[in-house]
Amino acid sequence: MNKIPSNIMALASNTSNKRETVCIFGTGDFGRALGHKLIQSGYPVVFGSRSTQTSGLIPKDAEVLNHAEAAQKAAIIIIAIQRQHYNFLAPLADILHGKILVDISNNLKINQYPESNAEYLAQIVPGAKIVKAFNTVSAWALQSGTLDASRQVFVCGNDMGAKQMVMDIVRALSLTPLDQGSLLAAQEIENYPLQLFPMWKFPILLSLGLTIFFFFYCLIRDVIYPYVYENKNFSFFLAISIPNRICPILALILLALVYLPGVLSAIIQLYRGTKYRRFPDWLDKWMLCRKQLGLVALAFASLHVLYTLVIPIRSFVRWRISTYIVSQALNNKTEPLDTTNAWLSDSYLALGILGFFFFVLLGITSLPSVSNNVNWREFRFVQSKLGYLTLLLCTAHTLVYGGKWFLSPTSYRWYLPSAYMLSLIVPCIVLVVKFVLILPCLDKPLTQIRQGWERNPRYSE
Amino acid sequence: MNKIPSNIMALASNTSNKRETVCIFGTGDFGRALGHKLIQSGYPVVFGSRSTQTSGLIPKDAEVLNHAEAAQKAAIIIIAIQRQHYNFLAPLADILHGKILVDISNNLKINQYPESNAEYLAQIVPGAKIVKAFNTVSAWALQSGTLDASRQVFVCGNDMGAKQMVMDIVRALSLTPLDQGSLLAAQEIENYPLQLFPMWKFPILLSLGLTIFFFFYCLIRDVIYPYVYENKNFSFFLAISIPNRICPILALILLALVYLPGVLSAIIQLYRGTKYRRFPDWLDKWMLCRKQLGLVALAFASLHVLYTLVIPIRSFVRWRISTYIVSQALNNKTEPLDTTNAWLSDSYLALGILGFFFFVLLGITSLPSVSNNVNWREFRFVQSKLGYLTLLLCTAHTLVYGGKWFLSPTSYRWYLPSAYMLSLIVPCIVLVVKFVLILPCLDKPLTQIRQGWERNPRYSE
Amino acid sequence: MNKIPSNIMALASNTSNKRETVCIFGTGDFGRALGHKLIQSGYPVVFGSRSTQTSGLIPKDAEVLNHAEAAQKAAIIIIAIQRQHYNFLAPLADILHGKILVDISNNLKINQYPESNAEYLAQIVPGAKIVKAFNTVSAWALQSGTLDASRQVFVCGNDMGAKQMVMDIVRALSLTPLDQGSLLAAQEIENYPLQLFPMWKFPILLSLGLTIFFFFYCLIRDVIYPYVYENKNFSFFLAISIPNRICPILALILLALVYLPGVLSAIIQLYRGTKYRRFPDWLDKWMLCRKQLGLVALAFASLHVLYTLVIPIRSFVRWRISTYIVSQALNNKTEPLDTTNAWLSDSYLALGILGFFFFVLLGITSLPSVSNNVNWREFRFVQSKLGYLTLLLCTAHTLVYGGKWFLSPTSYRWYLPSAYMLSLIVPCIVLVVKFVLILPCLDKPLTQIRQGWERNPRYSE
Repeated sequence: MNKIPSNIMALASNTSNKRETVCIFGTGDFGRALGHKLIQSGYPVVFGSRSTQTSGLIPKDAEVLNHAEAAQKAAIIIIAIQRQHYNFLAPLADILHGKILVDISNNLKINQYPESNAEYLAQIVPGAKIVKAFNTVSAWALQSGTLDASRQVFVCGNDMGAKQMVMDIVRALSLTPLDQGSLLAAQEIENYPLQLFPMWKFPILLSLGLTIFFFFYCLIRDVIYPYVYENKNFSFFLAISIPNRICPILALILLALVYLPGVLSAIIQLYRGTKYRRFPDWLDKWMLCRKQLGLVALAFASLHVLYTLVIPIRSFVRWRISTYIVSQALNNKTEPLDTTNAWLSDSYLALGILGFFFFVLLGITSLPSVSNNVNWREFRFVQSKLGYLTLLLCTAHTLVYGGKWFLSPTSYRWYLPSAYMLSLIVPCIVLVVKFVLILPCLDKPLTQIRQGWERNPRYSE
Repeated sequence: MNKIPSNIMALASNTSNKRETVCIFGTGDFGRALGHKLIQSGYPVVFGSRSTQTSGLIPKDAEVLNHAEAAQKAAIIIIAIQRQHYNFLAPLADILHGKILVDISNNLKINQYPESNAEYLAQIVPGAKIVKAFNTVSAWALQSGTLDASRQVFVCGNDMGAKQMVMDIVRALSLTPLDQGSLLAAQEIENYPLQLFPMWKFPILLSLGLTIFFFFYCLIRDVIYPYVYENKNFSFFLAISIPNRICPILALILLALVYLPGVLSAIIQLYRGTKYRRFPDWLDKWMLCRKQLGLVALAFASLHVLYTLVIPIRSFVRWRISTYIVSQALNNKTEPLDTTNAWLSDSYLALGILGFFFFVLLGITSLPSVSNNVNWREFRFVQSKLGYLTLLLCTAHTLVYGGKWFLSPTSYRWYLPSAYMLSLIVPCIVLVVKFVLILPCLDKPLTQIRQGWERNPRYSE
Repeated sequence: MNKIPSNIMALASNTSNKRETVCIFGTGDFGRALGHKLIQSGYPVVFGSRSTQTSGLIPKDAEVLNHAEAAQKAAIIIIAIQRQHYNFLAPLADILHGKILVDISNNLKINQYPESNAEYLAQIVPGAKIVKAFNTVSAWALQSGTLDASRQVFVCGNDMGAKQMVMDIVRALSLTPLDQGSLLAAQEIENYPLQLFPMWKFPILLSLGLTIFFFFYCLIRDVIYPYVYENKNFSFFLAISIPNRICPILALILLALVYLPGVLSAIIQLYRGTKYRRFPDWLDKWMLCRKQLGLVALAFASLHVLYTLVIPIRSFVRWRISTYIVSQALNNKTEPLDTTNAWLSDSYLALGILGFFFFVLLGITSLPSVSNNVNWREFRFVQSKLGYLTLLLCTAHTLVYGGKWFLSPTSYRWYLPSAYMLSLIVPCIVLVVKFVLILPCLDKPLTQIRQGWERNPRYSE
């Protein structure tokens, strides 16, 4: 026990300019790429390989030895071998005793094995200090030097000194080590690179479904109906007019869906009279993807803003306006200013601008670097107070948009109401229920429940 | 002294898959919520409580014992008790000797006590290793699993090993531990969750005051005056036209106020001939909230851009344009292109666009993750050079906006000049003084003073 | 050897509220500024100086002694002296043995000396524990308390305990310490504050050159040509019309240049049949500044959007439209809706909006805090798939913009084609080559090569 610390001490202190030798077990693609990079960064590298012949691809400055010899040359051994072949390390246990073994492996599926590869390695070579690292870096990126992506390397391990030495190597390769604690974190670190936006799947599928529905809805009302009844070809509405109907509708519905689960959970808690029972699974999942739902809603809102702002440049709009003005001139009359119209048009735009402004504020606050700099109280203030304000402004924007024609029977085509009216259902429900929940007679018991009070304590037993 | 390290070593090494028992003192809301979460994450939990009867709400997999028994079962004890009751721990000092005590308490006011709760705990149980953690997480968020907010848990403590073990628990709960150093940091960590945007108060109050002032100013000039003298109802100007006057004015004034304290401090230093005397308090405070002032200014500028871009969609503007064109057609005349007007209009818009563009660049650079990636020299370059360029462009934009009517007497109503003219005062002063300060005869002594030179060394004694 | 750890232990444990004395060698500007700040934060400070007389500027609460006496009073000594004078420390080696020496020096040029200043200090005083820190903070910022810039202090050193103590001091001064590992990192830490956006130089110079070229190109075609042939004064085009031609052109070309090196490297690898040979230097450098190229392109695209959206507010455009409408009215005719034109105009705008939308998404993903939160697979998806989609949309936007007049001979002036046509060359090449590379007959061998396969293994020897 006494020899190992002094060993590390020796390695750590003679770092003046000479770097310690690193051993790599395995001459596969990742092993070679890492070897190249280590040599470039000034580390002597020795490869451990079953056959020392197949060395054509191995960097020329590296030595190739058999596993036992290679292991003896270095204090740090990088295991660039697949998990299935870890067994061959068992006979080397004596040589590997006290060495730092770096597990860099990845799996093909999330939670493929009951324990992480690094913990499995620790079971096979119990005397070694296992450190998990490098699994989030791709061989191709390492080789080509084009590490545009995250330079973060998650590192975990039970031995502080060993972890520290591996983190120094990570830094020497111009990567950023992130200490994730003990080897317990290895499972999560191994799952990490296999994910592809897992939290975004539901919001994106949902918005895709809604987009398709509203696309056909608007197609029928705005293109097919005028073609059938008035024989007008408005097919070019497909490019801007219809997207500009779908986008605000989706933005509003998705934004309301961000706040619906909060309202539902309050109702459930009030009904149950306790906070100590789990919500149904679907509600839990829904709550966890609220941020993503909100950001997709913001994306649709931004598109809506862009589509709206180009309206005056559109060739069709210019034609319509000029036709209208010419007809006025030919009829020799000037219409007076309709103040009601001016009010409706201006306040509808103003509500939309303010709603979008607060929506963007919400989006900026959800950037990781910003949300990490606010405390819980500030975050609640922004996401709850500003969030409801945004929802209120956007709902009001949509209501005023209808203006005088709102609910008028002439706006029905084939018994279909305007699409924007459908979009108002969910936000109005959320706002009304939220308003009811704010009333003192409901807010007080809810606050008590959330502070741990129970109406019927036996429930939780 | 020898037993404790080996104890920790033992705990740290057998982490293969079994997690060490955690003891929680106190069965209040936060203690229970943390207990639930720990059990979910695979930790055996034992509660220490005065009465072992009141256990209805306690998670069923947890044991409830009296404090002494519970403490003996675990190496880590979470103190989920209010500071006022810490005294009861004094008799347990022997049992707690060498244990890791995690202080999770918060206060109701900033700097409520002379020393932090964690340091107070260290005084009461001197033999224990105190670690401050978890105080930034809310019980409700922990319980409901909806940790949308910052997952950061600030951790501090004098014992590295103890801190490491607490940080492992934090990570196991899917939170992000942030090592804040020794227990000295506890005071700041305890103050953190009590803040509500402290740096934003002054900028927001200031802009609110200015908004109200300019609102009534514009109301008088643009709505009441035409109503009184021309009997025109322009009340709908309240929705867009007047906000679109207030926003650019506030953006310009606030942006100038960002650069005014720098100019003032330079004058003070030149006058005093030394940098070794403190600025007046109000100047210090002003300097510290410059970033927030600038971001509020950017918010107003963004609103101004949106309000301006919707102009052509406004019903009132369409009516005005069509009336103008119809009257031209009826009078059978076409006006020729006025090149001066075209120049003024285009350059005013171009200056505004460029000003806004650099303003947004400044805003992006002040995002925490971006400003952390630039060094001091780069930050100075962006905030100083680009900042003054932005101020210059925005001031020029406002000057050209006035165009031919700038300073013309016909633009006065009730002796009130246009509102935008008031907004030019501060920025023009800042730019002129800054220009004077750049002159070599002033820049040279100023640079010397900032490098530590003193005109009159006796001053600082 | 045994005494030192106990020494540190003692210092670390008595941190209750009293702070340990800090010694500063050198009474220059930075030393004094740091001294002031340390005293403010509650640290007793003692200065070590050759002459104890020149003490007028030194903070009054600090003691000034000769070096040997000062060093004995503290465990931490900050060396605020220039590297050239480090020699004088050699005779003090005995006194400094076991002390923590903090190297805060900077150089005037990048890589000025073969070894870093901190490593040089370690050679002169081999018995001391050297820690590099504070070099990224400016004296002026420290003094004035206006640390708007990055508060990050990079810390490195071989002794963990020493590093920890220095990091505690950093935190006490309200700065954020960042552990950069062993003393090997000192060189990079010393180079860091000397940089001024090194990665941005090439993209900015390139875009400047292209801007100048296209400016004169458009000037000739759009201002000089009509002046010469039609005697029209369109000089005001300089403010908006010409910038709004240059911006989209540069955005498109620069975006294509982001993806060109990837395509080139694929061709080189296919030709060579291996990935184990370095690319030419210019290609490596090009690849490393792709992110910056893309962000500059995004800046131009944003300007293009702003310039385009103000079109309907421009005085010239209003004049042109009203003249056109009046002439229609006077000729007593109304043009029917041209559906083809409506389609072209709408789809051109829609393509532009979608292209810009995905471009902004790409930009947001490249924010450090966002890209740190996605894994390699997600980053590749966004930057590669979304990137090519953006390039495709923007290229299509430009192609449709030409509309019916695309390639028509009447659009040539002085044999010069429209500027936007020049901008299509690079993106079209990139897209065509990329499309060819996606074909299975090329994609399969390329994937194999990138996984380490070699067509001709002897190559790499």
